[in-house]
Amino acid sequence: MLDAACGLIRDRGYAGVGVAEVCAVADVRKGSFYHYFESKQVLTREVIQEHWQTQRARWVAVLSGGGPPMERLEALFAMQVQDLRAEQADGAINGCLFANLSLELSTQDATIRADLESIFDEQAALVAAVLDDAVVDGSLTPDGSSGELAAAMLAQLEGAVLFAKLRNDAAALDGLWGQLVRLMR
Amino acid sequence: MLDAACGLIRDRGYAGVGVAEVCAVADVRKGSFYHYFESKQVLTREVIQEHWQTQRARWVAVLSGGGPPMERLEALFAMQVQDLRAEQADGAINGCLFANLSLELSTQDATIRADLESIFDEQAALVAAVLDDAVVDGSLTPDGSSGELAAAMLAQLEGAVLFAKLRNDAAALDGLWGQLVRLMR
Repeated sequence: MLDAACGLIRDRGYAGVGVAEVCAVADVRKGSFYHYFESKQVLTREVIQEHWQTQRARWVAVLSGGGPPMERLEALFAMQVQDLRAEQADGAINGCLFANLSLELSTQDATIRADLESIFDEQAALVAAVLDDAVVDGSLTPDGSSGELAAAMLAQLEGAVLFAKLRNDAAALDGLWGQLVRLMR
Repeated sequence: MLDAACGLIRDRGYAGVGVAEVCAVADVRKGSFYHYFESKQVLTREVIQEHWQTQRARWVAVLSGGGPPMERLEALFAMQVQDLRAEQADGAINGCLFANLSLELSTQDATIRADLESIFDEQAALVAAVLDDAVVDGSLTPDGSSGELAAAMLAQLEGAVLFAKLRNDAAALDGLWGQLVRLMR
């Protein structure tokens, strides 16, 4: 049910997906749905958490690899590009679940917004830690804090993912790593 | 009616707003609505076009001012930051109508998606023309095309606007111009 909901919500947004539809795709009766989830909001919060647990494990695996910090960062962003290319090959780029829901729900649902804020905070902290490693090994001489730089890099990523979704073309991320290198200079 | 719809859609998204609600906020009867607009999609397309006409006039005014190209670009992005600050002071940052609808509808509505694509193409062309001026006056030595650089700058803006909406805090754009200067180097 979480998988079905995740796919539907990434594709159509929160308001665009009904409980009946989630049940139909998951092949579950509506009564069973409410046995597991109090509401669509509760379901969505679980979808968000499960998706982040999966993504987080991949981020940590790539970022805590043994290579030089800059190569680990490059691998993280290359993974995002690869994911979008796979989506495009599957027919449609649905983009980033967290970004989609941020723009749809930030002014609507304080609970989900707080969930999303924590996730983006965690993403920035994961990137900032590797930027700090890069400062230590001398490959980066930052102007400001590593946290601010990490947030700017994630903003560039999310903006590029937005254009990739809009154009259904992962080529919108072709120049991403070059842009991130500029931001780090 | 267009004003009422624009405010509602920026706040809650396309699926989150019903025709009845637009009519209630605009103080118009539902019968009158369908006299003017065939459907919510038609209304939304007009909202998008009207919003872009207004924004476009402001972009052109700032970008075609007499100063050096870099100052004109800085003024454009400062205007975006100022707009978000005003929204925050009004209570809630609703962000960019075009970005919000891009993430919500790109996989759902090919017509609206094409409208949004044209607008972002126009935005990139407006910025790219000033980047070209900067190349001519020697203040910019670009690596790639001005169109690619303009797209990267707009991605940086839209990513930052996303985080500003998520946190309801325009401070997410505090470092924006510095980041854009880095992208241009």
